[in-house]
Amino acid sequence: MKNNENLSNKRHSLAHLLAAAVMEIYPNTKRTIGPAIDNGFYFDFEFAEPISDADLPKIEKTMRKILPTWKNFERFELGAEEAKKEYPNNPYKEELIDEFTKEGQKVSFYKSGEYWDLCKGGHIENIKEIDPDSFKLDRVAGAYWRGDEKNKMLTRIYGLAFDTKEELEKYIYQKEEAKKRDHRKLGKELELFTNIDEIGHGLPLFYPNGAILRRTIENFVQETQESLGYMPIWIPHITKENLYKISGHLDKYDAMYSPMKIDDDNYYLKPMNCPHFMMLYKTIPHSYKELPIRYTCTTTNYRYEKSGELSGLTRVRALTQDDCHIFCEPEKIKEEINVILKMIEKVYAAFGLKDFYVRISLRDSKDKSKYLGSDKVWETAENALRDIVKNTGWRYEEAENEAAFYGPKLDFMFQDAIGREWQLSTVQLDFNLPERFELEYTDKEGKKSRPVVIHRAVLGSTERFMGIMIEHFAGNFPLWLSPVQIKIIPVRENHNEYAKKVADTLKEANIRVDFDDKEENLGSKVRDAKNKKMPYWVVIGDKEISSGKLALENRNGDKSELTLEELKTLLLKEIVDKLFSLPTV
Amino acid sequence: MKNNENLSNKRHSLAHLLAAAVMEIYPNTKRTIGPAIDNGFYFDFEFAEPISDADLPKIEKTMRKILPTWKNFERFELGAEEAKKEYPNNPYKEELIDEFTKEGQKVSFYKSGEYWDLCKGGHIENIKEIDPDSFKLDRVAGAYWRGDEKNKMLTRIYGLAFDTKEELEKYIYQKEEAKKRDHRKLGKELELFTNIDEIGHGLPLFYPNGAILRRTIENFVQETQESLGYMPIWIPHITKENLYKISGHLDKYDAMYSPMKIDDDNYYLKPMNCPHFMMLYKTIPHSYKELPIRYTCTTTNYRYEKSGELSGLTRVRALTQDDCHIFCEPEKIKEEINVILKMIEKVYAAFGLKDFYVRISLRDSKDKSKYLGSDKVWETAENALRDIVKNTGWRYEEAENEAAFYGPKLDFMFQDAIGREWQLSTVQLDFNLPERFELEYTDKEGKKSRPVVIHRAVLGSTERFMGIMIEHFAGNFPLWLSPVQIKIIPVRENHNEYAKKVADTLKEANIRVDFDDKEENLGSKVRDAKNKKMPYWVVIGDKEISSGKLALENRNGDKSELTLEELKTLLLKEIVDKLFSLPTV
Repeated sequence: MKNNENLSNKRHSLAHLLAAAVMEIYPNTKRTIGPAIDNGFYFDFEFAEPISDADLPKIEKTMRKILPTWKNFERFELGAEEAKKEYPNNPYKEELIDEFTKEGQKVSFYKSGEYWDLCKGGHIENIKEIDPDSFKLDRVAGAYWRGDEKNKMLTRIYGLAFDTKEELEKYIYQKEEAKKRDHRKLGKELELFTNIDEIGHGLPLFYPNGAILRRTIENFVQETQESLGYMPIWIPHITKENLYKISGHLDKYDAMYSPMKIDDDNYYLKPMNCPHFMMLYKTIPHSYKELPIRYTCTTTNYRYEKSGELSGLTRVRALTQDDCHIFCEPEKIKEEINVILKMIEKVYAAFGLKDFYVRISLRDSKDKSKYLGSDKVWETAENALRDIVKNTGWRYEEAENEAAFYGPKLDFMFQDAIGREWQLSTVQLDFNLPERFELEYTDKEGKKSRPVVIHRAVLGSTERFMGIMIEHFAGNFPLWLSPVQIKIIPVRENHNEYAKKVADTLKEANIRVDFDDKEENLGSKVRDAKNKKMPYWVVIGDKEISSGKLALENRNGDKSELTLEELKTLLLKEIVDKLFSLPTV
Repeated sequence: MKNNENLSNKRHSLAHLLAAAVMEIYPNTKRTIGPAIDNGFYFDFEFAEPISDADLPKIEKTMRKILPTWKNFERFELGAEEAKKEYPNNPYKEELIDEFTKEGQKVSFYKSGEYWDLCKGGHIENIKEIDPDSFKLDRVAGAYWRGDEKNKMLTRIYGLAFDTKEELEKYIYQKEEAKKRDHRKLGKELELFTNIDEIGHGLPLFYPNGAILRRTIENFVQETQESLGYMPIWIPHITKENLYKISGHLDKYDAMYSPMKIDDDNYYLKPMNCPHFMMLYKTIPHSYKELPIRYTCTTTNYRYEKSGELSGLTRVRALTQDDCHIFCEPEKIKEEINVILKMIEKVYAAFGLKDFYVRISLRDSKDKSKYLGSDKVWETAENALRDIVKNTGWRYEEAENEAAFYGPKLDFMFQDAIGREWQLSTVQLDFNLPERFELEYTDKEGKKSRPVVIHRAVLGSTERFMGIMIEHFAGNFPLWLSPVQIKIIPVRENHNEYAKKVADTLKEANIRVDFDDKEENLGSKVRDAKNKKMPYWVVIGDKEISSGKLALENRNGDKSELTLEELKTLLLKEIVDKLFSLPTV
């Protein structure tokens, strides 16, 4: 959801309207502050009696009643003493007024209808533009006055607000749907991953189902890129301090963990791999004849994230990147990036993510001191990216102050099955690391030249991508991704032998089979297949053995009968084609 | 090479003989000490004039001249003053004599022929047993008196000595052959791996060839074990201190790196994975119906090794283990271990390692206090291992005092292509960790029971195994392991298109192809294939294009002509069969 000033002003205006409604219903309430936020607005109050979510419809109704009576906001100013008189017995407003009038200034108020409030402004110009169905009160929460836990706990009312009723409904749908699909909940139910207190926050461990899922995703990307001439490398997870001094990370990058002393040197857990790639390139002499060199490595990085910000797989401290660095002649940049863009489009299509746009992330033109490299180098790089993206015909936008400190980049924003937007792939141009590491190749004239480096990750991080995919598919993974692809269920012990032959035949074809010969009843075995959201299962009893036809069922309830050979062909075709229907939403 | 007391006594006797020869040729030399070592003996001298390797044949000849004149060693004792008189002007012997006679004791001397020396004993009983062709002087080196660099530098002469002439020759052959095959040298020549000072000692990085080799090895083991019901998991590389407190590693294991502080906790780089496996098991309730659970993970561990002991891939600080933990009912131990043994045999056969024996590592029966668990449990476990190994018909030996403190184990000793012996796979029974982590399963009676844990690694560590394999194959990897399987070489630019079609056809069949269309001459392209020890290459020119027959050559110089389809079939069959001839030695 893109934010804009108009929407933000509308949300702030609705915060006034909320306060107006509250003051009408609960006149003894002390008002405090009410800003616009990402998905709407809130207002903090000190109520005389506690209220709850059950009171929100009444307040919302009053808001809708007041709204048509409001004209546009009018501004007026008051001195400190006069201003305070407007809020008898309200220490919060007094504190604010004292603060704003420290040097004798007046404070501004805004008024609409019967309601006025101390306010710096930022309201909608034409109040009639507010569709009364485009907002909704969301929930009541506790919040300390000014966010400080030493202060009194106030009551915060959150409201949702968007430009249109449709956008509000879409947002509410997404939120509810996202809750049902929450990857932390599904991660547990489907035995994909877990967080273990004894091991640490933000360091998830993966059960077999999750380990197979991550490997399948990683292998698919690896195979795709190796078919395009990318070559795997392997690097360790710790490194001497000196490496990050050369690269500049030690100065510019603040998510590194504290170092370990080994012998006489400081060693760091690596937060990123670029310097390792540079060093590997540097240890061998290169000629233009071998360029471009495309190194890739799927490897785990460790970055500090605040404990309170960690969440499931989407915000972790151990993140595995499908990292790649391309070393090429400067005149080959466009060609190389075009290969990358094609690859990104192809990979994401296989995950059913076809709706995307590109963000061209540029330097902050107002503060160039944050970046490495000259103006000229930056301009060339930014223009190159612009040209390439324009040529694709894809949707794009430009964003200042979003570049890496060493170069501009392209970020890919994909929409998932419920319409949420995620930043996933990244392509970064880098003229700086080749300089800092003094990388070279022998050019056509036999002279030493400096290669350009292109950084890129297709998935971003395996963990975050998995989190997004679990929610995107609501756990109903397409066959090629499914940790278990089919479950074979013998009805009774005397069907085990035949069922095992079926299972073994499919296993030999590299199909992931769960052969369930546990001493359980049939019903609970089928229930388990459904609960685990397995794509297919087959029940084998007397009838199936005598007819040689297997009874196949899928998670959508479709049933069919077919021979073992037909079943194998069906599964293999679906796996290779990566066919799937997105979960119906 | 197994050591025994007799051989050690012989080697010590030869150190006396070496000193006798030196004193005969260089009478002004000051003798110091001369013990037996693993492959022979040495003696440290202070020479009046420096000597070099060129002097060794002369000394060796004198040794052979003296040997027949010697009878068996005779012992006598002297007091401190008398003893010192035997070594006029020799401060080293004086220092030793003072030390040994501190409390008024006498010191012992041993004499044979004309030669005597201060000595605690340990000589061969019958000196005639020494075959004069079973020893050889090896080299001259510098060595500080008593190993302390503050002391004077002496001259050390090393000698090699074995039971027989054949064993000596085998050892010398192995040493020379090992030098030629040194994996550090081949690692560089074949662009497999490198050590980079800016990244750190013992933390090798792998170039594409090495990364493909390691992945091929790891995937082969993974596929083999998954076909036998082992399930992959994934764990992070760092963990909270508490985990290693529970497991006992923090107390008992001293190769851990210093901790990093994250928020309020100490975190460690993991040196081993057992505790993570235990925790994953523990987070889900288990029933006997699901057991055995076989978790496996190929993951990198970090252990401290002294800087001076690091070497190539065989002694590193970052070691990747193909780790596996099996959780099973105590009565299923035999069954599970049998599966493991079959797997080990199968995996190693694919690497051409078919000559091995098993060491059953048992408790120290004289001091049972060092171990956890009751006598009964140990007896059961040791007998189980014995029975299992006896049933295989494999060579084995039993070794007391080699068990882990938590259980007995099986160690696999494999012989490589030049006859060197390596300890590789390990299978360990563990009654201790299930106890410490309070692991449980619901047994047939519905009661909580404790599972047994079996630890095992097939390869040990990927890095060390790679180092051994590089030397075992002398870089001539069998086709299935070879990073590049075939090189396609167009003669001139106008052959590129046809050659690329050949390359693409093979690539589509998952064959690892190097398509070399670089602007180089044919000779240098073929030379590169030979230098890189590629199994096969094909040169494509006018003749090949018109005839449709490809000229195939392999690294042994064999040539043949065949169609593209025949070539593909030939390669695929060799890859699947894992056929190869060991390098001729």
